[in-house]
Amino acid sequence: MPQYKAPLRDMQFVLHELLNAEEHYAKLPAFQDTVSRELVDQYLEAAADFCENELSPINQSGDREGCTWNDGVVTTPTGFKEAYQKYIELGFPSLSAEEQYGGQALPVSLGNVISEMVGTANWAWGMYPGLSHGAVRTLEHHGSTEQKDAYLPNLVSGVWTGTMCLTESHAGSDLGIIRTKAEPQADGSYAITGEKIFISAGEHDMAENIIHIVLARLPGAPKGTKGISLFIVPKFNLNADGTVGERNAVRCGSIEHKMGIHGNSTCVINFDNAKGFLIGPENRGLNCMFTFMNTARIGTAVQGLAASEGAFQGALTYAKDRLAMRSLSGVKAPEKEADPIIVHPAVRNMLMTQKSFAEGARALVYLLSLHADIVEKGATEEERKSSDNILSLLTPIAKAFLTETGSESAKHGVQVFGGHGFISEHGMEQIVRDTRIACLYEGTTEIQALDLLGRKVLGTQGAMLKDFTKIIHKFCDANKDNADLKEFLEPLAALNKEWGDLTMQIGMKAMQNPDEVGAAAVDYLYFSGYVTLAYLWARMALVAQQKLAEGSTETGFYNAKVTTARFYFKKILPRVRSHVEVISGGLEPLMALDADDFAF
Amino acid sequence: MPQYKAPLRDMQFVLHELLNAEEHYAKLPAFQDTVSRELVDQYLEAAADFCENELSPINQSGDREGCTWNDGVVTTPTGFKEAYQKYIELGFPSLSAEEQYGGQALPVSLGNVISEMVGTANWAWGMYPGLSHGAVRTLEHHGSTEQKDAYLPNLVSGVWTGTMCLTESHAGSDLGIIRTKAEPQADGSYAITGEKIFISAGEHDMAENIIHIVLARLPGAPKGTKGISLFIVPKFNLNADGTVGERNAVRCGSIEHKMGIHGNSTCVINFDNAKGFLIGPENRGLNCMFTFMNTARIGTAVQGLAASEGAFQGALTYAKDRLAMRSLSGVKAPEKEADPIIVHPAVRNMLMTQKSFAEGARALVYLLSLHADIVEKGATEEERKSSDNILSLLTPIAKAFLTETGSESAKHGVQVFGGHGFISEHGMEQIVRDTRIACLYEGTTEIQALDLLGRKVLGTQGAMLKDFTKIIHKFCDANKDNADLKEFLEPLAALNKEWGDLTMQIGMKAMQNPDEVGAAAVDYLYFSGYVTLAYLWARMALVAQQKLAEGSTETGFYNAKVTTARFYFKKILPRVRSHVEVISGGLEPLMALDADDFAF
Repeated sequence: MPQYKAPLRDMQFVLHELLNAEEHYAKLPAFQDTVSRELVDQYLEAAADFCENELSPINQSGDREGCTWNDGVVTTPTGFKEAYQKYIELGFPSLSAEEQYGGQALPVSLGNVISEMVGTANWAWGMYPGLSHGAVRTLEHHGSTEQKDAYLPNLVSGVWTGTMCLTESHAGSDLGIIRTKAEPQADGSYAITGEKIFISAGEHDMAENIIHIVLARLPGAPKGTKGISLFIVPKFNLNADGTVGERNAVRCGSIEHKMGIHGNSTCVINFDNAKGFLIGPENRGLNCMFTFMNTARIGTAVQGLAASEGAFQGALTYAKDRLAMRSLSGVKAPEKEADPIIVHPAVRNMLMTQKSFAEGARALVYLLSLHADIVEKGATEEERKSSDNILSLLTPIAKAFLTETGSESAKHGVQVFGGHGFISEHGMEQIVRDTRIACLYEGTTEIQALDLLGRKVLGTQGAMLKDFTKIIHKFCDANKDNADLKEFLEPLAALNKEWGDLTMQIGMKAMQNPDEVGAAAVDYLYFSGYVTLAYLWARMALVAQQKLAEGSTETGFYNAKVTTARFYFKKILPRVRSHVEVISGGLEPLMALDADDFAF
Repeated sequence: MPQYKAPLRDMQFVLHELLNAEEHYAKLPAFQDTVSRELVDQYLEAAADFCENELSPINQSGDREGCTWNDGVVTTPTGFKEAYQKYIELGFPSLSAEEQYGGQALPVSLGNVISEMVGTANWAWGMYPGLSHGAVRTLEHHGSTEQKDAYLPNLVSGVWTGTMCLTESHAGSDLGIIRTKAEPQADGSYAITGEKIFISAGEHDMAENIIHIVLARLPGAPKGTKGISLFIVPKFNLNADGTVGERNAVRCGSIEHKMGIHGNSTCVINFDNAKGFLIGPENRGLNCMFTFMNTARIGTAVQGLAASEGAFQGALTYAKDRLAMRSLSGVKAPEKEADPIIVHPAVRNMLMTQKSFAEGARALVYLLSLHADIVEKGATEEERKSSDNILSLLTPIAKAFLTETGSESAKHGVQVFGGHGFISEHGMEQIVRDTRIACLYEGTTEIQALDLLGRKVLGTQGAMLKDFTKIIHKFCDANKDNADLKEFLEPLAALNKEWGDLTMQIGMKAMQNPDEVGAAAVDYLYFSGYVTLAYLWARMALVAQQKLAEGSTETGFYNAKVTTARFYFKKILPRVRSHVEVISGGLEPLMALDADDFAF
């Protein structure tokens, strides 16, 4: 069973050395007096301790036991409840919530860094507090004062948890066609009726109350996405004094049997004239939800990072330990009956791939998290707007690309273990199963790709992309005299330019037929992901070179950064060539076949 | 739950129209009087009926129930035993076995075609008779007359099953370091002691007796692979009259909890001075095993084909049925609340990918199966040798490339279903889990890649590769005036040439450092796989064009072949570009990092 070890050194490298988080916090009025490097490091160490010692040990048992459903009651795996109590005691749920309701008002970015640790140690467990977070933010942004007062203190402290009840069996990502109804009642509340599916943490035994945020239609609401409103529907109604009262007509009809995240309850939730309360304006429910779609999607990107890191840790330990065959270039461990498998180039290739994805993903997630801080707390509108643009462009890339590369890393984790990778006790196959959902929920890879290419890139006539390619261009330009960086900057600059050209090429075709966007989108997303990570790897190499030049004694650590950057550029980045060529193949080969002629 | 439907039309296309199987059988003395098209089709229909109606319905329940172990006794899932009885009654186990022992002496190729159906309908179940097959062939080729008489009739009829007990916990693919011992006894038998792991179908409740074929070391045997001998170790010793006697000291210590193929028992088998009998010469056990390594690996390649076909069938049905979003190029199903998802290019891309992999895999597996017939029953030594060379080259490609593309198809199956793909009842995630083992057992993808590039290609100074590229070259040349084929033949001819150049380039580097082979091998294997399938798709397109030109009324079927070939060339084949560029990156980026510096 793999034991999670928080990669604190690398987290600090990304936060402090690559992204200058301390300076970043100092520039934000909300944090400049409260958030110091010491405070950040203190939180990281406390979270690392909790994740390594409380969450990691119940990851595998949680998968094996799973959740159980009995007549509407859901029991979580052994130890989940106790770990959640400790999590509350340590104050983690309230980290980034507003002070007024008991929050610590710390940056979202710090929360995301901690999420990485929680998620790598035990993703299924981490979803319980994770979903609460969405409910808290919905209430913070769209709730009335009365609603905030009633629900936020207990959600912020973690005594209650929350959910997001969006989709329905027939609807999937197409929320415009949901059918759940909300009938206005004489007392100003609404009677909510309908069935929601895929409700993560929808029912469980870890909290006193569960506050559901529910999408539903008012009578006579317009068809489609413009006729959906948002409601608060508590599992237990509240008494006049705010304490937990009688049971509301909300019931968990069943839990899903699924590929992974067995420790998390994925519920069918039935609302049968349940009492609910409108949040935000009528028929604007989807707009309210979209306020923090970016942050929710970054939260899912973290799952990809977690998969890459977790699979890398497991595979690395095994590859150093396991003996098989002799190196083709001569015996490496003559005292042993075979060489450790890390000597074999194919094994190294998998390990380096995992490492470059994990560390690259960390850089991207943290970068976006700092931008999310600015979007929320930036000093000027201009700063906020600028960060929002970058976030809007890079979020679908992070969500889709990091979850796909996370899946790939997880696959390599199994492969490094050989046949043993298929066996549950080694923990590698669980990562494959757990992380598979990340490419599906919060918008599939295909939907992220359409969001990126259709809405963000072509929808802004390329403006949003240009903002980002300009940043890359400036970075390349500023370092063009650095001979040590040339091996990275030359290909990066060329691909950065090609990114624009490729966009233009697709844009021209799309004017003839909008389906060309759908045909190109996924490959375009991969291209964008590989280039974005190349930019971050070049930046990491630069920082490492600078530290070495300054005489750092951590030569192993910094040399590894440069070596991994080189690996990424030589062995991963060439994948863009196929994506470019596939894009040039266009739409026709996909659409030529009549739907009836796929099989005979 | 997906219901398997045998793709008989496509199977017949590949067998009869692409590969002219009838003519092939007519040329082989062993089959020319017995095997007709009618007989083949009759077997296919009988197998399709059995697979669709007996095996497919217990595929999902078998996964859910799994096997259970209780004090050495293994119980298979509900219905497995009964289906096995029917399989025996229908005579399938004896299909390709020798007549002398009750076999039907039919071609191996026919057996493989039937394996495809069995494996797609229920891979876990299919492994029970599948492993027997290995034991039968070992006995047929290496057993003494006495041994054959004692064990073959009941194995051939299927009343007993067999296993292959090769690896041990510390050994994996490195069989040279196994420790199981065989001590000669006064009566000519051997006392076998040791623990074998990953023994598929090692213990179960489906047969009267289980005949284990076991690798073990004689006292004083040379170290490594040259000191391993092969033994027959029955679960029940035989009485003097050949009937099942007392229990041998063979015990199933436990079964593995694993990612997939839950319906198959993967056993730890303990031999504690068990009575065994030497097969073949002392210390030549591995050589005996290698006799049919190619056919065993083709058997695993079938699992990749099965995954592509099964995932394609499930995804296609869903994509036509499921409604979500509107087509970007305008509403396609105005009478419905959304369009069926098959209208979306990204969904089509996944379906076409699955289709091109499934049908391409079928062509490759059947092609190799016909060569396997010739290797065994060819009229002349020259024919046998020629087919053996092609088989030796293409087997690692088929095994690794088809199982990897099968995994990819399975992934797309989940993705087409969106969130529902993660839910067990839809059956897509089971295919991902079941097929994951195919890239691991019978030699991992990495081991196949080394076998291909190191042993088969460079080890013959390119001769084996040249034999095959010459075939492709001749095909291109023979059809160079066919304007309709130009779109396929031009890229194919170019890649065929590049295959040789790439080999030369790697060969030169490998002279400096043999690890360059390991660094290039996996990408080289993918390159080889994509080109091999391109060759087969071009041939399929040619056949389809000819049928259309001849005025066939099956225009939908044949047009789909041409369209799918075009898709493959435009949207799949460009992947070779990345592999070529990654190969050119060489060994250095993989090996530069010290093993201690992978993580801090």
